[in-house]
Amino acid sequence: MFRHTKQLAYKVRVEKPDPTFARALQQAIGGVEGEGRVCLQYLMQGWNFRGPARYKDMLLNTGTEEIGHIEMLATAVALNLEGATEQEQVNGASNPLVGAVMDGGDPRHLLSAGMGAMLSDANGVPFNGSWCVGTGNLAADMHSNVTAEGGGRVLATRLWEMTDDPGMKDMLSFLIARDTMHQNQWMAVLEELKDMGMPAPQDFPQSEEVQDHSYEFFVHSDGEIPDDARWTSGPSVDSHGQFSVRQAEPMGGIPDLAPPEAAPEMHNTIVQAEGGFLRKAKDAITP
Amino acid sequence: MFRHTKQLAYKVRVEKPDPTFARALQQAIGGVEGEGRVCLQYLMQGWNFRGPARYKDMLLNTGTEEIGHIEMLATAVALNLEGATEQEQVNGASNPLVGAVMDGGDPRHLLSAGMGAMLSDANGVPFNGSWCVGTGNLAADMHSNVTAEGGGRVLATRLWEMTDDPGMKDMLSFLIARDTMHQNQWMAVLEELKDMGMPAPQDFPQSEEVQDHSYEFFVHSDGEIPDDARWTSGPSVDSHGQFSVRQAEPMGGIPDLAPPEAAPEMHNTIVQAEGGFLRKAKDAITP
Amino acid sequence: MFRHTKQLAYKVRVEKPDPTFARALQQAIGGVEGEGRVCLQYLMQGWNFRGPARYKDMLLNTGTEEIGHIEMLATAVALNLEGATEQEQVNGASNPLVGAVMDGGDPRHLLSAGMGAMLSDANGVPFNGSWCVGTGNLAADMHSNVTAEGGGRVLATRLWEMTDDPGMKDMLSFLIARDTMHQNQWMAVLEELKDMGMPAPQDFPQSEEVQDHSYEFFVHSDGEIPDDARWTSGPSVDSHGQFSVRQAEPMGGIPDLAPPEAAPEMHNTIVQAEGGFLRKAKDAITP
Amino acid sequence: MFRHTKQLAYKVRVEKPDPTFARALQQAIGGVEGEGRVCLQYLMQGWNFRGPARYKDMLLNTGTEEIGHIEMLATAVALNLEGATEQEQVNGASNPLVGAVMDGGDPRHLLSAGMGAMLSDANGVPFNGSWCVGTGNLAADMHSNVTAEGGGRVLATRLWEMTDDPGMKDMLSFLIARDTMHQNQWMAVLEELKDMGMPAPQDFPQSEEVQDHSYEFFVHSDGEIPDDARWTSGPSVDSHGQFSVRQAEPMGGIPDLAPPEAAPEMHNTIVQAEGGFLRKAKDAITP
Amino acid sequence: MFRHTKQLAYKVRVEKPDPTFARALQQAIGGVEGEGRVCLQYLMQGWNFRGPARYKDMLLNTGTEEIGHIEMLATAVALNLEGATEQEQVNGASNPLVGAVMDGGDPRHLLSAGMGAMLSDANGVPFNGSWCVGTGNLAADMHSNVTAEGGGRVLATRLWEMTDDPGMKDMLSFLIARDTMHQNQWMAVLEELKDMGMPAPQDFPQSEEVQDHSYEFFVHSDGEIPDDARWTSGPSVDSHGQFSVRQAEPMGGIPDLAPPEAAPEMHNTIVQAEGGFLRKAKDAITP
Amino acid sequence: MFRHTKQLAYKVRVEKPDPTFARALQQAIGGVEGEGRVCLQYLMQGWNFRGPARYKDMLLNTGTEEIGHIEMLATAVALNLEGATEQEQVNGASNPLVGAVMDGGDPRHLLSAGMGAMLSDANGVPFNGSWCVGTGNLAADMHSNVTAEGGGRVLATRLWEMTDDPGMKDMLSFLIARDTMHQNQWMAVLEELKDMGMPAPQDFPQSEEVQDHSYEFFVHSDGEIPDDARWTSGPSVDSHGQFSVRQAEPMGGIPDLAPPEAAPEMHNTIVQAEGGFLRKAKDAITP
Repeated sequence: MFRHTKQLAYKVRVEKPDPTFARALQQAIGGVEGEGRVCLQYLMQGWNFRGPARYKDMLLNTGTEEIGHIEMLATAVALNLEGATEQEQVNGASNPLVGAVMDGGDPRHLLSAGMGAMLSDANGVPFNGSWCVGTGNLAADMHSNVTAEGGGRVLATRLWEMTDDPGMKDMLSFLIARDTMHQNQWMAVLEELKDMGMPAPQDFPQSEEVQDHSYEFFVHSDGEIPDDARWTSGPSVDSHGQFSVRQAEPMGGIPDLAPPEAAPEMHNTIVQAEGGFLRKAKDAITP
Repeated sequence: MFRHTKQLAYKVRVEKPDPTFARALQQAIGGVEGEGRVCLQYLMQGWNFRGPARYKDMLLNTGTEEIGHIEMLATAVALNLEGATEQEQVNGASNPLVGAVMDGGDPRHLLSAGMGAMLSDANGVPFNGSWCVGTGNLAADMHSNVTAEGGGRVLATRLWEMTDDPGMKDMLSFLIARDTMHQNQWMAVLEELKDMGMPAPQDFPQSEEVQDHSYEFFVHSDGEIPDDARWTSGPSVDSHGQFSVRQAEPMGGIPDLAPPEAAPEMHNTIVQAEGGFLRKAKDAITP
Repeated sequence: MFRHTKQLAYKVRVEKPDPTFARALQQAIGGVEGEGRVCLQYLMQGWNFRGPARYKDMLLNTGTEEIGHIEMLATAVALNLEGATEQEQVNGASNPLVGAVMDGGDPRHLLSAGMGAMLSDANGVPFNGSWCVGTGNLAADMHSNVTAEGGGRVLATRLWEMTDDPGMKDMLSFLIARDTMHQNQWMAVLEELKDMGMPAPQDFPQSEEVQDHSYEFFVHSDGEIPDDARWTSGPSVDSHGQFSVRQAEPMGGIPDLAPPEAAPEMHNTIVQAEGGFLRKAKDAITP
Repeated sequence: MFRHTKQLAYKVRVEKPDPTFARALQQAIGGVEGEGRVCLQYLMQGWNFRGPARYKDMLLNTGTEEIGHIEMLATAVALNLEGATEQEQVNGASNPLVGAVMDGGDPRHLLSAGMGAMLSDANGVPFNGSWCVGTGNLAADMHSNVTAEGGGRVLATRLWEMTDDPGMKDMLSFLIARDTMHQNQWMAVLEELKDMGMPAPQDFPQSEEVQDHSYEFFVHSDGEIPDDARWTSGPSVDSHGQFSVRQAEPMGGIPDLAPPEAAPEMHNTIVQAEGGFLRKAKDAITP
Repeated sequence: MFRHTKQLAYKVRVEKPDPTFARALQQAIGGVEGEGRVCLQYLMQGWNFRGPARYKDMLLNTGTEEIGHIEMLATAVALNLEGATEQEQVNGASNPLVGAVMDGGDPRHLLSAGMGAMLSDANGVPFNGSWCVGTGNLAADMHSNVTAEGGGRVLATRLWEMTDDPGMKDMLSFLIARDTMHQNQWMAVLEELKDMGMPAPQDFPQSEEVQDHSYEFFVHSDGEIPDDARWTSGPSVDSHGQFSVRQAEPMGGIPDLAPPEAAPEMHNTIVQAEGGFLRKAKDAITP
Repeated sequence: MFRHTKQLAYKVRVEKPDPTFARALQQAIGGVEGEGRVCLQYLMQGWNFRGPARYKDMLLNTGTEEIGHIEMLATAVALNLEGATEQEQVNGASNPLVGAVMDGGDPRHLLSAGMGAMLSDANGVPFNGSWCVGTGNLAADMHSNVTAEGGGRVLATRLWEMTDDPGMKDMLSFLIARDTMHQNQWMAVLEELKDMGMPAPQDFPQSEEVQDHSYEFFVHSDGEIPDDARWTSGPSVDSHGQFSVRQAEPMGGIPDLAPPEAAPEMHNTIVQAEGGFLRKAKDAITP
């Protein structure tokens, strides 16, 4: 069960509203690397988690924290859409806000949300539940969470570079700090797992793999392959094997599917013309 | 900002796990009429709301309550996917759970989520942020919220009919009760608005409408139109007019778009054959 | 079965083509609150409807009317994309139309549709069938239809504010009037239902609800809750109970899922390191 | 503008309701090759069309016909979901319809639509507006329409094979006949265009192409290439060139993008460790 | 199995980077008519193909060629996002690239991809696998492929018109040439099929159609129908019948669905008020 | 540029075709953790990469390898859909394959693909380009790639558990081995980066973070927080700080948005009734 406190997790203030920046902020709300994704990813992982309570608790704590980040960003979007009264008019719009939004902003900020945030990304593409990955395997999920925070922190630093508004820079500096923590936190869980949880899942018997190819880098191109790279020689990261390099050659045959006649009810059967219809036609009409 | 309590908002127990029912429950998590939608719809509406604090608070209170409902349902899905060990094997699957899931359940409950819930509907279609409607207009949004709760309660009653598990029936009875409250609650806000907020938005000057047609039922079919229905005669619900009936006739002309030649760079221009290529061809080859 | 008349349902004319406004109009064609959604929502509800013919007829009549509204809006988009020959060049584009579209318009209006409308919203997000809700329960569906018209009318008024073109303002004034009618019309059906169809569905035995909580407002926040609001005291809107307020407390236990070891074939089992791999590593290399 | 007639375009009757077949029929309503797609594709193409009225009229006529096909199929779905009272119970469901739907049907037919059709495909994936292609170029659009009808007729024949219900077979035989007509009809338009509209668009000056490669089949594999196939030798279908075969060789250089340091505000810059962190760590802890 | 060569299939150079054009190019990568769609459509068709090897080989050859086209376009996007240092600042952005992108470009080119291409269209809508059609029926699939190339070539010509950059024009001239070949190539396969594969599928016994309507143009509108058009009279394109014209009249009855009472567990039953609740209420409060 | 070899990368054989398993395999083709995603993710990252060539080459090599994995899986799907002639009939289907597919398989395998694979997941949800993440920051992208391979290997092990077919088990054993390599390979790149690339991006000046909170675990729940967990005390994984624990308290104020009256053209203004419309109405009609 959850509770809400009216005060925000951190200060959100906007000195100079900017509808274009409001649009950019949407990526951090409803984008694939946004707070909505991490929030629901951690909560779902936490609710589904079947192992030691300390991991479940950790997931739910941080998932709960992230709801408050969406709240901050939604507030920031709403504030960036206010009071654009002095802005020069663009696109011939008689209303300055309308002009500002239609010129680099998200038109649905006005048309659909009435100066509010939406559950979509910087291009107005709706948030999609498929982004919230939870396999039930702790190692795989921790990597997924490090990824989500990595992408999120990259995004936050780019937003920070994009704005000169001190309030927005401060809010983003806080979110960047939290992304730092969360990246470290999920990585720390991996550190508690044998061999950092690699290869995930760890409980599959590696004897059942086609082990000849478990640590070979397959070369499929004419690019130069350095023979001393970390991934081409030396012990594997999971410490179970030795990296090596192999020129890719096909190990399977040519696929052989049953012909369409074997399943006539599919109506895939080809009816070929004798000589080709159009060719005959063209021959006929060509002098 | 938000906080989490480890105890659930209400009891969730499953006496006889049922992967098929787990699939059906997904509709209430990640479906268009599910708790994920109402939760994020209310929270977003609350964060964006610009009017009296009492409405904003109400939205955020109930949005926060709904996070806990997703938590309950995710737990119910996870419990329904456990311990299917005695179940008869179907589809030739050697593992009973696999057989049960592949025969009427959601295969991704095993393949992707490892016996956990996902942010998708009963067909595995991901949750979509476009469902979370918030216009910024209180009346329009309250209607949207009544709709969300109406659809949600209809769904919950159908899930209640579908199961014989006493734990699941109890959980659904609770959710149905909360849907009752929430439908009433959003409707009560409408009651506080003049004319129940109709027509939304109320602050558009109705003098700017083409008022001749504001209260006419247009007949576009040969179906019988009752002349004493609530919507064909008598005062309009918003009390601003009188209902009447009108046979639909076009009031506009035939559209007249500029020809493709006016914008040759679009490459829409048609190059017509003399007489028709194929016809000529066929004529030529037909004896 | 359907028939088409070449004349439009209402006048559509554009005095000063505006590709930016064409983009905004797309929201009313293919957006979640657009005519495409209401059209297909009403038609599908009508075709699926199982009760008295008068409601089925009404749904199909208005659904048919809405096809003509999409037609009007598609025509309006096409007209707004014509003849931008005098417009100043932007973005360095040598073609005025291209410049105008790339600067605030939808690039796919040129690239994909060749100066025509598309079945997508103002951000180019495609129309999505999940928006067309039809539960089969009349009350729930009428609320859904009021919602669709409420959102649609809010959108239409914002489009009306956004343009100075008299032709476009006239067309929108007509569509706003029809939205007024349709909101009233669906609400009028609700009026014919006992207690306005609340709570939907009405035919679920309320004795099966957990009735202690059917009319309680749950407080999940530290926001002030007015004790005299319409939704905190007095009779419920459905007249079946009395509103009251309750501080939210968890009524369920802590969830207890089976451990990963219970289903080893899921490969969720955690393999924990002794002491932590990275910590050991770091200790070793730190002087 | 449109009008509706209550009678269906063709007979729809179901002798033995079959929820599994109802699910399959959904593909013909809301699938990529379904009637919803062709209907809206033709109507949108018609509304956007800028050339001779005869083509615009044709598109709108057939688009209007297709609305009635959706109506027929929605009715067929609803009828297939009725009266499954004698069916054996599956999945332990106490209600026969529920059992039948959960065992091969679409659960949302009950949960969401209350025994009605939805705007989605046979897997419950919602109809998507991106499928409705209209480029504004007549030839390209006619090919798109032939494609839509070809895929639709293939689907209809497979549905016809799947059912033994005489009513359903009859309805599908009608739809198959109409698909025959519509394929022929769009192809007939192509016949009216010079060289069958190929290559679309025809009004692009072919002198601006890199003409050396306009009629060469590029070989990218070790598969055998027949030298007498219609596409490897002889005149091209558009009659503007001669087919030939060419072994693919790269004609471009190796891409050369600016390094991350050129745009430090993107935060793509790599910070490389001396020797590799983990390798050092492992070396240190490995005896 | 596949191999990669580091050199590009054709030259890709950009003289004057243009973030707005980078956005437009995205349509050719991840749009419905883009190279990503044709590439995966041909490969999937090839892998699934069950008939003569020559067609399977052809599909895989051209599918492989198309991967290289995505590579070229992705490179072109990356190059168009570089070095906008001299550009005038727009939208108040202190960084010229940021300003240029936010003013007509795709903000995610910076925010999400760090100056790289994405798998989405010109509006940032992600590539969607539903676009890759492969029915297994050769004729239907060839029409689909002609369509894909037709739409693709129309798009490429519009991109060619949109840019003045000689490098981009050259690259597009190459892609246009390849689209010419591919349109011809798929059409050539159709030529090898009896009656050009029409109606697809050809192996369905036409005696099972409702043949009275297989070659009739149904008139659903008051538009003028030319009686000498290729599609209203004369032999059908598939040469199996004669075109004719028919005024559309319903041939089916009025649909008759079972009432909601027949399935009470669906909770669709209507509970009607005596006289109407609101009307009574209003009557009571109206003086 | 790319080339194709007709032989498969590894053996694909199916001893006992199983349409239900064909459906499950789709998750590995078109699902969020499937080969289609990793393939296009690596290729896009490679094409966009701006740093040392060795990383770009590595990405393109492995991306090219993955195209061959999709090829193997598509072949496996096609083979699993063949020859179900001896299977018992289910769902009353007269055709064994139809019965088998409708009972646990994907109906579109027959209806849409004619016994072939599709670009969608195990529930028929289409592949979505948003899954292919490439930020341009090497560390963030390597984490994303480890995630993709981790999820993919978890999926492959579950598919391996699900089947008894020796051919399918062998194919999956090969894919599992390659996932082992690829997880190790991407992780090995991280090892070459200082502090394993953490926090990504590494080139953002951490002095600009709100550093007080960069290494604090925020407690938002009443769950027990272990004070000696790897993530609550000791050095951070990135070695830049020390972990600690902090009870979450709001650090921001209560949001204060401008009232709707400030932007009347949005039509968000509330028109409140005196006393409440419905309450008055009900008072009037209640005796």
